Amino acid sequence: MSTPLQSTERTTLRRSKERGVADRQALYDVLRDGMFCHAGVVVDGTPVVLPTAYGVDPAGDGTLYLHGSIAGRLLNAALEQTICVTVTHADGLVLARSAFHHSVNYRSAVIFGRPRLVTDPAEKLAGLNAILEHLVPGQTDVVRAPNRKELAATALLALLLTEASVKARSGAVNDEPEDLDLPVWAGVIPLRVVAEDPVTNPDCDLPVPAHVQTRAKALAG
Amino acid sequence: MSTPLQSTERTTLRRSKERGVADRQALYDVLRDGMFCHAGVVVDGTPVVLPTAYGVDPAGDGTLYLHGSIAGRLLNAALEQTICVTVTHADGLVLARSAFHHSVNYRSAVIFGRPRLVTDPAEKLAGLNAILEHLVPGQTDVVRAPNRKELAATALLALLLTEASVKARSGAVNDEPEDLDLPVWAGVIPLRVVAEDPVTNPDCDLPVPAHVQTRAKALAG
Repeated sequence: MSTPLQSTERTTLRRSKERGVADRQALYDVLRDGMFCHAGVVVDGTPVVLPTAYGVDPAGDGTLYLHGSIAGRLLNAALEQTICVTVTHADGLVLARSAFHHSVNYRSAVIFGRPRLVTDPAEKLAGLNAILEHLVPGQTDVVRAPNRKELAATALLALLLTEASVKARSGAVNDEPEDLDLPVWAGVIPLRVVAEDPVTNPDCDLPVPAHVQTRAKALAG
Repeated sequence: MSTPLQSTERTTLRRSKERGVADRQALYDVLRDGMFCHAGVVVDGTPVVLPTAYGVDPAGDGTLYLHGSIAGRLLNAALEQTICVTVTHADGLVLARSAFHHSVNYRSAVIFGRPRLVTDPAEKLAGLNAILEHLVPGQTDVVRAPNRKELAATALLALLLTEASVKARSGAVNDEPEDLDLPVWAGVIPLRVVAEDPVTNPDCDLPVPAHVQTRAKALAG
């Protein structure tokens, strides 16, 4: 059993309250469909927002693993504060008859928490594998696992999924009734992240393996 | 003539210094290719990272306009601090023979600045138009412009493009020499944001206009 997501002042300060979904499954859905997040860390009083890869361990209340591909100073600051991690899917441009009613179809998750530096080698390997599996399912089965030196050179942060909010907009345009007769097209341009055909490295003469093709097709389809 | 981008401690704290490009054109290229940014604002000591739409006015040192589709508290906090705005393009998953050398091809811009609330009606209209034109070129020519009430109901922030950094990774996999003979495929899964065919609103019987088709095709192509 997992704890219901906390709805705190931080996670309810969004403008359109009706778009908030305090639902753990909705959170997992947004995380599942994304590949990268934007993490916000305060350094010397100033917010720094950087993209990074993530993975999810759904055990218990759930843990978000963040690849520590961030500067040392940022990492040290992150460990001493509540950080914010945001995952956003831009699903469509909503084009209205009036400039004012233009909008974006999207799904986003905003997670707050104080991250923990993962130092236990077993958890670190599992967390890094979760990130790699999240990006390309099946990849950890085939690659050379990190050796001790590589593991030590990689920072990994763990964030409990206990304080989060999910917001979404979907569907059609909402124009003012008096604008409906304007000679202006209204509708949505759907957006999607897709993969193109995998490009084999110049120093590799192996065929593209099934799990890589599957991943590329899943994104393309 | 525009001021060279400032390279401050904040914008040079990234791990891989060789990936930094203190180049205004590179900044504009990243901004041009993106549709949404993630803005980080410190609220009561905690970073809050939210996605929003933006537009660019290249005059002078350049101005980034941010749609104020953010909560009142966040907006008020933003006006009293240096905020961070990050635009990221995930261009590809870089799959190496070792877990350690997996990477991501990407381009990102990180901008710092103290935003200004735009209150002058003419600048506000121009800034909102810049955002809409950035998303769908030609759209401001056809839609009903905001009336006074709508303009007052929309917050707009302006951020000077003077302190920013651009980072990118592109190209192939860099494996350890001793891993090259492993029976593991190495290569890149290219990623791209595309548009699908525009979906006309149920209450609209007009054909998809040329500029909308052009926008969708530009993303799809």
